[in-house]
Amino acid sequence: MTILSATLTEVLIPLAAIIGIAFALYQWYLVSFISVSPAAKSEDDGCAEEHLLEEADGPEKVVKCAEIQEAISLGANSFLLTEYKYLGAFLGAFAIIIFLFLGSVKNFSTSKQKCVYDTSAECAPALVTAAFTTVAFILGVLTSVLSGYLGMKIATYANARTTLEARKGVGKAFITAFRSGSVMGFLLAASGLFVLYIAINLFKIYYGTEWEGLFEAITGYGLGGSSVALFGRVGGGIYTKAADVGADLVGKVERNIPEDDPRNPAVIADNVGDNVGDIAGMGSDLFGSFAESSCAALVVASISSFGTEHDFTAMCFPLLISSMGIIVCLVTTLFATDFYEINDTKQIEPTLKRQLIISTILMTLGILLVCYLALPSYFHIYNMGSTPRGVHWWGLFFCVAVGLWAGLIIGYTTEYFTSNAYSPVQDVADSCRTGAATNVIFGLALGYKSVIIPIFAIAVAIYVSYSIAVFYGVAVAALGMLSTIATGLAIDAYGPISDNAGGIAEMAGLSHSIRERTDALDAAGNTTAAIGKGFAIGSAALVSLALFGAYVSRASLSTVDVLSARVFIGLIVGAMLPYWFSAMTMKSVGKAALSMVEEVRRQFNTIPGLMEGIASPDYATCVKISTDASIREMIPPGALVMLTPLIVGILFGVQTLAGVLAGALVSGVQIAISASNTGGAWDNAKKYIEAGNSEHARSLGPKGSDAHKAAVIGDTVGDPLKDTSGPSLNILIKLMAVESLVFAPFFAAHGGLLFKI
Amino acid sequence: MTILSATLTEVLIPLAAIIGIAFALYQWYLVSFISVSPAAKSEDDGCAEEHLLEEADGPEKVVKCAEIQEAISLGANSFLLTEYKYLGAFLGAFAIIIFLFLGSVKNFSTSKQKCVYDTSAECAPALVTAAFTTVAFILGVLTSVLSGYLGMKIATYANARTTLEARKGVGKAFITAFRSGSVMGFLLAASGLFVLYIAINLFKIYYGTEWEGLFEAITGYGLGGSSVALFGRVGGGIYTKAADVGADLVGKVERNIPEDDPRNPAVIADNVGDNVGDIAGMGSDLFGSFAESSCAALVVASISSFGTEHDFTAMCFPLLISSMGIIVCLVTTLFATDFYEINDTKQIEPTLKRQLIISTILMTLGILLVCYLALPSYFHIYNMGSTPRGVHWWGLFFCVAVGLWAGLIIGYTTEYFTSNAYSPVQDVADSCRTGAATNVIFGLALGYKSVIIPIFAIAVAIYVSYSIAVFYGVAVAALGMLSTIATGLAIDAYGPISDNAGGIAEMAGLSHSIRERTDALDAAGNTTAAIGKGFAIGSAALVSLALFGAYVSRASLSTVDVLSARVFIGLIVGAMLPYWFSAMTMKSVGKAALSMVEEVRRQFNTIPGLMEGIASPDYATCVKISTDASIREMIPPGALVMLTPLIVGILFGVQTLAGVLAGALVSGVQIAISASNTGGAWDNAKKYIEAGNSEHARSLGPKGSDAHKAAVIGDTVGDPLKDTSGPSLNILIKLMAVESLVFAPFFAAHGGLLFKI
Repeated sequence: MTILSATLTEVLIPLAAIIGIAFALYQWYLVSFISVSPAAKSEDDGCAEEHLLEEADGPEKVVKCAEIQEAISLGANSFLLTEYKYLGAFLGAFAIIIFLFLGSVKNFSTSKQKCVYDTSAECAPALVTAAFTTVAFILGVLTSVLSGYLGMKIATYANARTTLEARKGVGKAFITAFRSGSVMGFLLAASGLFVLYIAINLFKIYYGTEWEGLFEAITGYGLGGSSVALFGRVGGGIYTKAADVGADLVGKVERNIPEDDPRNPAVIADNVGDNVGDIAGMGSDLFGSFAESSCAALVVASISSFGTEHDFTAMCFPLLISSMGIIVCLVTTLFATDFYEINDTKQIEPTLKRQLIISTILMTLGILLVCYLALPSYFHIYNMGSTPRGVHWWGLFFCVAVGLWAGLIIGYTTEYFTSNAYSPVQDVADSCRTGAATNVIFGLALGYKSVIIPIFAIAVAIYVSYSIAVFYGVAVAALGMLSTIATGLAIDAYGPISDNAGGIAEMAGLSHSIRERTDALDAAGNTTAAIGKGFAIGSAALVSLALFGAYVSRASLSTVDVLSARVFIGLIVGAMLPYWFSAMTMKSVGKAALSMVEEVRRQFNTIPGLMEGIASPDYATCVKISTDASIREMIPPGALVMLTPLIVGILFGVQTLAGVLAGALVSGVQIAISASNTGGAWDNAKKYIEAGNSEHARSLGPKGSDAHKAAVIGDTVGDPLKDTSGPSLNILIKLMAVESLVFAPFFAAHGGLLFKI
Repeated sequence: MTILSATLTEVLIPLAAIIGIAFALYQWYLVSFISVSPAAKSEDDGCAEEHLLEEADGPEKVVKCAEIQEAISLGANSFLLTEYKYLGAFLGAFAIIIFLFLGSVKNFSTSKQKCVYDTSAECAPALVTAAFTTVAFILGVLTSVLSGYLGMKIATYANARTTLEARKGVGKAFITAFRSGSVMGFLLAASGLFVLYIAINLFKIYYGTEWEGLFEAITGYGLGGSSVALFGRVGGGIYTKAADVGADLVGKVERNIPEDDPRNPAVIADNVGDNVGDIAGMGSDLFGSFAESSCAALVVASISSFGTEHDFTAMCFPLLISSMGIIVCLVTTLFATDFYEINDTKQIEPTLKRQLIISTILMTLGILLVCYLALPSYFHIYNMGSTPRGVHWWGLFFCVAVGLWAGLIIGYTTEYFTSNAYSPVQDVADSCRTGAATNVIFGLALGYKSVIIPIFAIAVAIYVSYSIAVFYGVAVAALGMLSTIATGLAIDAYGPISDNAGGIAEMAGLSHSIRERTDALDAAGNTTAAIGKGFAIGSAALVSLALFGAYVSRASLSTVDVLSARVFIGLIVGAMLPYWFSAMTMKSVGKAALSMVEEVRRQFNTIPGLMEGIASPDYATCVKISTDASIREMIPPGALVMLTPLIVGILFGVQTLAGVLAGALVSGVQIAISASNTGGAWDNAKKYIEAGNSEHARSLGPKGSDAHKAAVIGDTVGDPLKDTSGPSLNILIKLMAVESLVFAPFFAAHGGLLFKI
């Protein structure tokens, strides 16, 4: 049926994964050549340039950098370990719930049952599938934890090295930061694929050709990945912004000391936050999206013609797309690290943006190849397991490609609205003339406006992919958007690494020219971070819809009719949930920041000589405050996300739950985009005034002017919006959808208690 | 069939309307006794108290008050006349479009056609119904314009009178402001009912017993009312906030002069804004809701058993509910003006809140009576004209009552989140300690959180009413919420009148004690204004859903399935529209405020002696700037609202349009509630600090402290949220729904061009 044989598929997928992992490790190896100990440096073939550098930023500065790196690394480690402790306890309990709820579908019977879709066949007992789902869940959790942890490790390993390389020039520093970002990107994409592939093959030993049960169990993998993302995004988001806002409120506003000043007790916590929020959090978010869209595609495919005809290669189409993505991203990375060299700070942003466009173009060809080789020339996709829809192989190409290109459009729109090279951010900066109030009004309006094009892009992607191949089309469109995840994560992780590098340069007291270079790296990182968030939200929307489709299918719903009161109340309450969730996360950041403020004030008031730079602040207490606050404060929003599907499903049943999912999806994606773009725009409006690169910018500045003060207020308001509540909404919509999918058989069997009375 | 005979119904409805109008005129007559000319005063039986007053706030102050009132009245008049000019041109063109589009449904044929629901009968030609719809549209426009205009007239008539009465005590001033508010409330409720009733009876001369066509034509009335509301809410909203923000930015922030200081050139425009935005705008909004929910209920009823069995009394049930509402509100008003007397400022807020609870309790009994008398004991409601649903008379009682009580819950929740007597606003005030940024973060979080309970209340109202009597139930639930509209509007209009009274006291330089009394009136008005907005939004949600049901019915859709790609893309794009719309309205306010700022600055810089209070500012130019800006700036958002249903319906068809309506509804209601509560909370947090009535409040103040400055920034950000973009969203969701309803036959016949290709 397909040109690519099943055996070759069995070889190619793990091969691509292993290449990806090897490439990541090689990048890490390259970064490790940079030494952070002055002793090791003397063993270098010390060139003249090196010696010149050492005069200003000599060995004792290097030691200082290494010390700061160590402190950041320790802080990040301690947060992640604390988080994992709670995560372990919580997800352990959740694993038991999964097993019990799913096992109870057929009253824990161990005898075989009729299959849901192919009613003539016998399927594995629900109890066994419950056990396998639980195993897949645990695997998803472990993979996500491992990827996030290693990402944080390389980031805290690379930050000081980027600072030190900045002494040699902006190009060297860029490559260090970018390579380290790639480590994260490739490790995550490849190990995610590898573990999923292994799990499928292991589960196949039991299930044999009964793919319906097999891929039902595999959905646990997506749920596992997404559950970790809840901790990573929400906990990490609260951590990073509590530290950032707390540090700024006392440091910049009250004490009038610059950002990243080593006298500020919260400065280490702030830098730790970048690593746990933007690296580990973003990583687990995108890993969750990847795992979920793969699972959604697989579960729909398993009850479609691929599954019923046992066409292994076609069945693995989603995994082959991801495999191709790893290879494409590998080639793309070389464009940034080997084919070009950056000599000037102006080249940074174009180089990063070029990564996006190169990977998208190459991937379009890659998708075409995969579609041609791995799909039958004509096949059927079943809508909700019933109506067959005929699809040509090139039809599926359009599904994947429309997702991929929609991602690029979202990325570029985000850039337009958040980069200070364009008029939207400049208008916001201009509004600072009349004070903070107009800045906030214009910023909010910008965020609202920035929603328009991404939503149209998502709508087109949904319409095209759904029209061609119903929910399978939507799932592969999501995969298309995520196929370049390795590159996306690389340029995204590059941001916080550069941010940290700048912080270390400041704290270690390196010379001004070094700080200028790291600032240039950081400014480009701000824009790519916004683009990364745009991708994450766009893919979350598509993934949730695909999961929604899979859920509907598994809950045996043939329609979700808005004209039914059950669905409509679900829809309106679902649309409310993102507001509830945002209220919680924003309030959490506010509260955690206030306790940070108190601690920082306390240290300034009680430690003699701190302001004068004679005494050292107590960084560890601030790190601990952020850690404790983020763990404590993430419980209410986490509970909202985890409990809503369970409560709605049990009390109101599958129809209302479908309404809730649809409502949360269509409402959440808007708030997520507007919140993250508003925040990004305020941040860059402030940077625009600070940099003063144009006549207009200089008329608003300099640092400390009234307009700049207004811009700082906007930036502070934007912090929790762009780094906590906005991105966390991805988790809300995805996690509720995947959780509903996993529990669908349970809700269908035992749910809707309230309406039954 | 019903206890109440058709003849009695024919008498009772106009009687209630006439009583309402007479009561309004009587209230006006009572207010007119207060003289604003010092000459007339000497004819009074001048008691000792009167003479004492005159020493401090003597005849020349009274003249000053009259002058200011005159200026405000002139400004408001000039704005409304300008607005009506544009409105006339635009709605004239729109009337032609309505006639042409609807006439084209059967290609302008003048021969009779098959009825849509009762296919055995012959119905009036589409062309004739198009003509009647256009007439109904024009009637709706005229009624709304008249009510808004008279409301503004009485408000600008009463403001100085309230100021002058405040010299005699807070009770007298309260009664003046409240009576004037009642004029507005009763005029609007009663004339809306009266014109609708007349129109039905006139149309009946042609249609006879063919109620399907008759009530289809009547929907034009709702569209007319809502179209005016677009101008009133959006144009008025931009006007009032451009003036307010502009006045504050220069006056409070740059020049450090108090609010309502007569030296501020924008001060008259600011006071005019209260009248055109909060009085005329709010009035047209609620009139639109009233007209639309009546039309939605009537159109559903006409194709239900009431219509097919020609049961006139039952058919008029929605109008009878409104008639009962007028009588109940009349009695309720007496509790505020005659049964109690206010002697202390502390009694104001409880008295106003008591109005809500009294009217709700009395109305519950009233509804029970109407249901018992005007409904058959058992009857059928047809869902989309097909599935019959058996309903008992008391079932419909629950539908109306659940709407009424949901309104009360929304009102009280709004009060909890926006009154500074409770912890949410106090927390926001407290967050001002750490500056404007935390104030904005906490305020946004509060707004998000305030959405939860209203949405649950709306969801319960929808579920109960829909379960009992499908979309007819939802329509009468909306009517239930709006049945106490006269009282709601009275306490709502009371707010801006008191605000103006305070402004006039300040500008005329009346003594401090007078200003304190009007401030107390105003503070209570702030809370009631927020409650009024809560009502307006809640009823808009129910009305839109009822209109949505009627639209679905007329477009002959049997399901609106989220699982269809056409519906889903509509849903997600619809959910985006409120963001697009808010971006436009907020940006509009920002831009208009900036041009106001420039003018105010210009006057301060070029008019010698202005700051010293020797020279008079040029108020008229500021009024003109606000007028021009609001008319100009309302075009893009207005076009978005008016064109979206037409474009979507014509290009994508009725299914996608249904998705857009549902998406806009579930997303818009959340933003509307959160925006208006956030703004209300910031306003009252500022007032909390200024008033300094508790230990906590004093620790944040006084006026001019850092915390207070931060609070002022929040207040300014909140202005466009609570008075422009938030309430305007009501119009977005209602107007799109009613427009879709009116054009449904056209879209069903000629729509969906893009999918037909």
